[in-house]
Amino acid sequence: MATLNDIAAKLGISKSTVSKGLSNASDVSEDLRKKIVEVAAEMGYSGRRTQKRLCVLVENMGYTDPNQFGYDLIAGFTQLASAEGWVVDVVPFVKEDQENVSYSGFMARHGYQGAFLLGFSLVDPWMQGEFHTAQIPTVLYDNRIPQNSYMASVGCDSAGGMEAAVRHLYGLGHRRIGLLFSELDSYIIKDRYDAFFCAMERCGLEVDPELIGVGYFMAETTHKYLPKLIERGATAILCSDDTRALAVYTECTDRSLRVPEDVSIIGFDDQPISAYMNPALTTIRQDRTALGKCGYYALSCLLSGVCIDSILLRAPLVVRGSTGPAAAPGGKSGKEAPNGS
Amino acid sequence: MATLNDIAAKLGISKSTVSKGLSNASDVSEDLRKKIVEVAAEMGYSGRRTQKRLCVLVENMGYTDPNQFGYDLIAGFTQLASAEGWVVDVVPFVKEDQENVSYSGFMARHGYQGAFLLGFSLVDPWMQGEFHTAQIPTVLYDNRIPQNSYMASVGCDSAGGMEAAVRHLYGLGHRRIGLLFSELDSYIIKDRYDAFFCAMERCGLEVDPELIGVGYFMAETTHKYLPKLIERGATAILCSDDTRALAVYTECTDRSLRVPEDVSIIGFDDQPISAYMNPALTTIRQDRTALGKCGYYALSCLLSGVCIDSILLRAPLVVRGSTGPAAAPGGKSGKEAPNGS
Repeated sequence: MATLNDIAAKLGISKSTVSKGLSNASDVSEDLRKKIVEVAAEMGYSGRRTQKRLCVLVENMGYTDPNQFGYDLIAGFTQLASAEGWVVDVVPFVKEDQENVSYSGFMARHGYQGAFLLGFSLVDPWMQGEFHTAQIPTVLYDNRIPQNSYMASVGCDSAGGMEAAVRHLYGLGHRRIGLLFSELDSYIIKDRYDAFFCAMERCGLEVDPELIGVGYFMAETTHKYLPKLIERGATAILCSDDTRALAVYTECTDRSLRVPEDVSIIGFDDQPISAYMNPALTTIRQDRTALGKCGYYALSCLLSGVCIDSILLRAPLVVRGSTGPAAAPGGKSGKEAPNGS
Repeated sequence: MATLNDIAAKLGISKSTVSKGLSNASDVSEDLRKKIVEVAAEMGYSGRRTQKRLCVLVENMGYTDPNQFGYDLIAGFTQLASAEGWVVDVVPFVKEDQENVSYSGFMARHGYQGAFLLGFSLVDPWMQGEFHTAQIPTVLYDNRIPQNSYMASVGCDSAGGMEAAVRHLYGLGHRRIGLLFSELDSYIIKDRYDAFFCAMERCGLEVDPELIGVGYFMAETTHKYLPKLIERGATAILCSDDTRALAVYTECTDRSLRVPEDVSIIGFDDQPISAYMNPALTTIRQDRTALGKCGYYALSCLLSGVCIDSILLRAPLVVRGSTGPAAAPGGKSGKEAPNGS
């Protein structure tokens, strides 16, 4: 492992300047500091080795409150990491942060030996660039970097979850199943979207493109697509996530559609709120505490040179009150239903 | 958890008879013993709780010698399990054993709380039957039971490994790539076979069905297909496993084909022998010790109620001497090469 002296020798500067550069001292120019950090990262210098330090970088996800999605993920991760003597910093992150600093520079400067990444999207600069080559043990939740063996993936088995959901609806007599999804700009939303098509095929159901609504803004998209789906004869709707299911509830209330008598709704995630919605939401569960623990396990494997590719948890269907028998052909939602494709 | 008294009450027999039945005593009839074992399994009685016991069941795989495939798998598993106080029994198994006893009966009788299963095939009775419903924490190496959340899977990322192999050959100028595979009667061989097609597609190469040879007996299949593949212009051959690659070496020697000058060969597994073949074999590596450790991790998760679906390790390509530049069109193997599909 490279020492401060090695970095100093390589750059032809003093050891104390290297040390100042790495600790962000104000009497080192920004240019030189950047150079020091880059060289330190290149040479594999990983900072304050006396303290074992990991970080959780969080984007696009709440985590400070137990009702937010990231809370249990981080709790599970930190619980195992702390027990093995790691200090874990949780760092909120935005896209723009990645434009001003390299990943390896960031990690080296703070002395982090590995990272657990939550909520990164496919358009993030590091996702598109440095993650493909960085030699830093990194575990991505719900993301995947296929060609870099320093990057492992943890998540849930979308395919199994979606199949359970579609089979459940099928068993209740639903044949016209619609989809209300957020935009396909993340690895996991694409994964769930593909899983829906596989599940429909495995159940022998045809997908009607007219029963699919995709958009970024939840209320707007739901407002636009829900009436269309119902008109086209959808008796059940699968949502990309529980929050979107909540938007569908609101829209149903506005239109005097009853859940589940007129339309069955299924979410994804089993967020804490799901059990308290009215009716309680049938949803595909992600065990977030377990996912956090698996994140730590995968990272500890990478840190000891075991190249984990992925750990997937089962995503069981939690059946609650938002799904019921399909409305009869003469029912409210089926009255004007066309035959579809 | 059920006690001996519970089982006795259910069957209307004495506790001591139950105890005798579970310990295979000779003064209990075979019929009654079977009944006791079944009821004990149904009621969730898991035997000698004072000792923490797991088993590794091994089929179709050598494991007693460090040169055999199963050795490191079991070593990795046992190392972690022992450290956490488990007694691990390694039990050789055959298909016929599964016809005489139920899986839950077998586990209950021996007081095993969980199992790591190596080498089971798709035609095994338990694979086709009880594994789909058994509520016993079980980890399958290179197998998958999709619908039972008590069953987790560990293995390697065949897709990544195959893609690395095909890209490597592509970089060496190979375009006509053949396949010599064992029969597609196991989950993992199917998985590798599918991975080959994906990898070829991702590299923009067409698969010529005439360049694929599949069969159970290695020497016979190789003898039959190798000349055909070479005649049809294959300059490289991917094998389902290292042992098959060894059979290909033998056949090449018989036919005065040089490896890699006339044909490049790639194996799968990185068995200990691969490095000592002449030339040393380029192969897709499975880190067996790490796989064994992941097997234990997955089982410990299942035992504590965390429903692991799968853990995959990376399968890196280990480049050695058996792959080289594709023979020029005028070369020995390319002389009569047709244009193919």
